[in-house]
Amino acid sequence: MTAGHDAELRAMRRAIELARRGPATGANPQVGCVLLSPAGEPLAEGWHRGAGTAHAEVDALAKLPAGAAHGATAVVTLEPCNHTGRTGPCAVALVEAGVARVVYAVADPGRASSGGAERLRAAGVEVEHGLLSDEVEAAIGDWLFAARARRPRVTVKWASSLDGRAAAADGTSQWITGPTARADVHRRRAAADAIAVGTGTVIADDPALTARDADGALLAHQPVPVVFGRRAVPAGAALRRHPHQLLQYDGPELAATLEDLATRGIRSLFVEGGPTLASAFLAADLADELLVYLAPTLLGGPGLALGELGVPTISAAPRFTFSAVERLGDDVLLVAHRAAPTTPTEGN
Amino acid sequence: MTAGHDAELRAMRRAIELARRGPATGANPQVGCVLLSPAGEPLAEGWHRGAGTAHAEVDALAKLPAGAAHGATAVVTLEPCNHTGRTGPCAVALVEAGVARVVYAVADPGRASSGGAERLRAAGVEVEHGLLSDEVEAAIGDWLFAARARRPRVTVKWASSLDGRAAAADGTSQWITGPTARADVHRRRAAADAIAVGTGTVIADDPALTARDADGALLAHQPVPVVFGRRAVPAGAALRRHPHQLLQYDGPELAATLEDLATRGIRSLFVEGGPTLASAFLAADLADELLVYLAPTLLGGPGLALGELGVPTISAAPRFTFSAVERLGDDVLLVAHRAAPTTPTEGN
Ligand SMILES: NC(=O)c1ccc[n+]([C@@H]2O[C@H](COP(=O)([O-])OP(=O)(O)OC[C@H]3O[C@@H](n4cnc5c(N)ncnc54)[C@H](OP(=O)(O)O)[C@@H]3O)[C@@H](O)[C@H]2O)c1
Ligand SMILES: NC(=O)c1ccc[n+]([C@@H]2O[C@H](COP(=O)([O-])OP(=O)(O)OC[C@H]3O[C@@H](n4cnc5c(N)ncnc54)[C@H](OP(=O)(O)O)[C@@H]3O)[C@@H](O)[C@H]2O)c1
Repeated sequence: MTAGHDAELRAMRRAIELARRGPATGANPQVGCVLLSPAGEPLAEGWHRGAGTAHAEVDALAKLPAGAAHGATAVVTLEPCNHTGRTGPCAVALVEAGVARVVYAVADPGRASSGGAERLRAAGVEVEHGLLSDEVEAAIGDWLFAARARRPRVTVKWASSLDGRAAAADGTSQWITGPTARADVHRRRAAADAIAVGTGTVIADDPALTARDADGALLAHQPVPVVFGRRAVPAGAALRRHPHQLLQYDGPELAATLEDLATRGIRSLFVEGGPTLASAFLAADLADELLVYLAPTLLGGPGLALGELGVPTISAAPRFTFSAVERLGDDVLLVAHRAAPTTPTEGN
Repeated sequence: MTAGHDAELRAMRRAIELARRGPATGANPQVGCVLLSPAGEPLAEGWHRGAGTAHAEVDALAKLPAGAAHGATAVVTLEPCNHTGRTGPCAVALVEAGVARVVYAVADPGRASSGGAERLRAAGVEVEHGLLSDEVEAAIGDWLFAARARRPRVTVKWASSLDGRAAAADGTSQWITGPTARADVHRRRAAADAIAVGTGTVIADDPALTARDADGALLAHQPVPVVFGRRAVPAGAALRRHPHQLLQYDGPELAATLEDLATRGIRSLFVEGGPTLASAFLAADLADELLVYLAPTLLGGPGLALGELGVPTISAAPRFTFSAVERLGDDVLLVAHRAAPTTPTEGN
């Protein structure tokens, strides 16, 4: 006898809530777990509190006396791990506790940690997956992307006139777009783990790279500032007063930099420019999402928002798909996603 | 005693219908007229059939025996003219027929022909205007614009990637946008009196500049093709097989060319490019409407949709207003209008 579909569905909803108590950024995902008795009664709950602490399943098991989980069903948002890190494999802990059935939403995309479902089945545990997987995919989408692609999900943002210029002939660019568009940028900054600019923008604009509300007050979450380029960030730069310590990368190898950011728990990177850095990301086909803020004006001249991208002919141009088209005050925001996701291929 | 508001409203609706029987293009506007008896009964109807023929009021009067219009109300879509051209002034014809009251929708913006209302009033006729003026403004908007500004209403259209390129590095540009966007262009071509390209586009693309449906069949209305530039249109060019005789202007003075087009009855001009001609129209601030078809792709490189516009600094950039944002298949169309209409100033 097992818990039954309705009880498991309720338990998965609860596990999704529990998962949210864990940290939204960092190397590990948010995971929640509910243990159900064979009759479908909740026995214990657990969630993951971040790298180095117990996984959600172990957290839940630890709340029960020895033997109490015998014959139980474990409902977990993510496939139990098969990995001995700072904690033992969750799959083994579940088997040893006598759990009879495991229901999880989304498969573990981690290379070292996956295989938990197989290990459970090999030990005679009934395993099912896919319950509320869309909800969980949406909730931990950036972590899943980073775990699968081994790099953060990259958003490249620029603001331009209708003819693709980010600045007028004399270099002036503030403000091309209006306050509604700028507020939208700040909201999206706050949703990213990190925010990137080139040294050119640091030196020209001295940006704070914080996410602020309309009154200039800091929003709750602040992205980690990342500077690309060899030139030094000036001692008095606003960036040095950012709530997070800045990271600077002086190598031009974007893919290697992204891999390093992923190992630091950065799952999403918001590339704010300037034109040189944005063009480099696009030329390397490392942009998963584009945010193009268009102002109803024309500038002409040399101040292009994007430069050379290495596209020789029209059939070789990268295709995106518009996922949203929004009017923001006087301006328009176009959101586009890369038609085929760009996962680095591996030589193994 | 006069016809009464309800009878006049019905008569104006009928006059608007009658107006549509006249030619939609040409130097003269579509105008309709209904004559009402003092009791509000329709006596006669008239409409204008194009330059050189009777105006709507005279057309209606001609259908009545002498004296029958005595004490009548004339309901006309446009202010009766005060101009002796190939026909005498309508204001005088109405006075001579004994019309007691004139109701018109929209004032005559023509320099030589306006003043009809004043002339009627001076002769003791009761004059009222503004009835259903929005409907009439919309129906003959291009003619009114051309009459007021003494040039056609100009739409500049281009298709580009999100980074403002109209062609890839090797010059390839067909097709940046998809079939839905191209069908939209053809529908808008069919709504314009004339369509303009530079010699660069004629020589590079050999365009037909006809308005066609999805099967390639010609739509009912075809815009007059206008070529800008000194270079010759090749003898075998597709343009030479256009249903309308092409017009070519070899002077770079766009304002003078537009004035000439207006005298030929061209009220709306659809500028299809290429980049050099489109940039010239925009640099001269002669675009009333922009149609920007954006494909979800990036091209980089030198193939800019617009070149130099003579904007020195951001505060000097021309401001437009988005009037529509549409998704067309995979693409997006942005429609923008010049924030302040650009009427040429006159030295008189
Ligand atoms: N409209 C907008 O949306 C927007 C946004 C941001 C900035 N801007 C404007 O852009 C201007 C600055 O433009 P910019 O292009 O000089 O600035 P940038 O892109 O911020 O900085 C360029 C620098 O980035 C560094 N970099 C690191 N990795 C790179 C790689 N893989 N490829 C290329 N460069 C790499 C290089 O620095 P080193 O030379 O130091 O090695 C390079 O010189 C400012 O005027 C700013 O106002 C506009
Ligand atoms: N993506 C799009 O929406 C789109 C649309 C159309 C064309 N195109 C592409 O554009 C390319 C052609 O570009 P283009 O710029 O050479 O063509 P263009 O703008 O069609 O032609 C330029 C020529 O227009 C003439 N002209 C007349 N009056 C002018 C004025 N006031 N200012 C400037 N020029 C004036 C000049 O001709 P003379 O030198 O003969 O005097 C000039 O050389 C083709 O490859 C075509 O495929 C793209």
